[in-house]
Amino acid sequence: EGHLQGVFSLRDMALAQPNTRLFNLLKKDAISVPVDADAEDVAHLFDKYNYYALPVVDKDQKLLGVITIDDVIDVMREEATEDIYLSQGVPLEERVDTPWYESIKSRMPWLYFNLFTAFLAASVVGAFESTIAKFAVLAFFMPIIAGQGGNAGMQTVTIVTRGIALGEVPKGEGWHILRKELLLGLLNGLAMGIVVGAVGFIWKRTISLGLVVFLAMMFNMITAGIVGTIIPLGLRAIRQDPALASSIFLTTFTDTLGFAFLFLLARVLIPGVR
Amino acid sequence: EGHLQGVFSLRDMALAQPNTRLFNLLKKDAISVPVDADAEDVAHLFDKYNYYALPVVDKDQKLLGVITIDDVIDVMREEATEDIYLSQGVPLEERVDTPWYESIKSRMPWLYFNLFTAFLAASVVGAFESTIAKFAVLAFFMPIIAGQGGNAGMQTVTIVTRGIALGEVPKGEGWHILRKELLLGLLNGLAMGIVVGAVGFIWKRTISLGLVVFLAMMFNMITAGIVGTIIPLGLRAIRQDPALASSIFLTTFTDTLGFAFLFLLARVLIPGVR
Repeated sequence: EGHLQGVFSLRDMALAQPNTRLFNLLKKDAISVPVDADAEDVAHLFDKYNYYALPVVDKDQKLLGVITIDDVIDVMREEATEDIYLSQGVPLEERVDTPWYESIKSRMPWLYFNLFTAFLAASVVGAFESTIAKFAVLAFFMPIIAGQGGNAGMQTVTIVTRGIALGEVPKGEGWHILRKELLLGLLNGLAMGIVVGAVGFIWKRTISLGLVVFLAMMFNMITAGIVGTIIPLGLRAIRQDPALASSIFLTTFTDTLGFAFLFLLARVLIPGVR
Repeated sequence: EGHLQGVFSLRDMALAQPNTRLFNLLKKDAISVPVDADAEDVAHLFDKYNYYALPVVDKDQKLLGVITIDDVIDVMREEATEDIYLSQGVPLEERVDTPWYESIKSRMPWLYFNLFTAFLAASVVGAFESTIAKFAVLAFFMPIIAGQGGNAGMQTVTIVTRGIALGEVPKGEGWHILRKELLLGLLNGLAMGIVVGAVGFIWKRTISLGLVVFLAMMFNMITAGIVGTIIPLGLRAIRQDPALASSIFLTTFTDTLGFAFLFLLARVLIPGVR
């Protein structure tokens, strides 16, 4: 008793002959979901098979209740908000009408965390203070190289995160994506690198400057493709939401490495700069 | 003929006495949606009132078809993808398994647009080349001040965009949000400004440097709150999706103004720097 035996369809009942026994309308192979199932997985099940309701059972197949499709819509809405918020490091509980003192409490820890990561990236700049003093034009290319890496990386992160959320990235298939993003990083790096390299050369009539910014852009775009793939896949591997603050982790990498590429290459390749 | 007269409930029919006339089960005040309704608006209607199906009519109330809840789930899924993709400037059509040559075609125009905006922000840095050559430590604070503005601004953009999508921001109510975000920008600016100001002062034992980076951070965080509110509200006002490339527009502002605040304040406040 209390165990799921099957389900009835209201449509079958309405269309049945009046003298049909209810038992003959019972569908025995009823699909059910375990009570500890993940809400997002259940939502995907409804989406895939167009169910309107599913029974919920415990591990002994005992019937505990029914999930209907309007519950699922609520889950999907929450999930969408969650993905956007998480990827930007925005606290989940905040809405436009949250009072300002609550907003401060929820936003400020993230901003302090961001500040910490920003100091990490800036410390690379600090280490090359003498290089910048000698050749201040490098400061012009800092935001361009770091920023383009961040933008290209976020394209990758967004597509990979969404692919994971939609169940389009089976475990162990990460390599295919990594290979594709590596190739895209290389091609985007060439395309963007040629533009910045040309600007560097034409502006200062210095071939070595053009070469430095071309190579720094190339390396940073390739880094962006690799890191942008690894962050969401890595978060999934350690059973965290792939969207979790991915933009903050990514830009820490693309800023830090972008600056390092730029200044190291300048020291090595531009005569008179150390 | 062909006009919507009302709807029947399958439940009412199944539970009705066998001799009831169908006409008596007709619900005449049927809710319907016009054929040119926005798919997202219809999805919100289903979500709010827990409908399972709604009739679709033309402008003469002629019945054209029925929308069921599984169509709505598809719309909500697309909408969630759209919001995330749009806000990052990621092409809507791309998925993880899109071939690389298609990905390049869809991503590269965005990256070139980003590159253009990055050059705009960097041109501020270029204009202050002599300032940086004199006082290279300013380059250390560039990514911190610009980056914190970008992060705080994206918190605002994300919350405002989501609020608009959920219908929580009635037209004309934008002022309330702007006032709140202005206050938050001020408080966040104080909190972050004190940290960077202290680092600037303690590191170089220069009060004026501490004051410059404190004020630059303050101004940029206030800018981030204002711009982060205005971008999504402005996009809605001109009937564009509020999520559209908001991160790119925002960081263009926070980078450009962040650099300008930093270098202008340095010229005015730090003795010997021009």
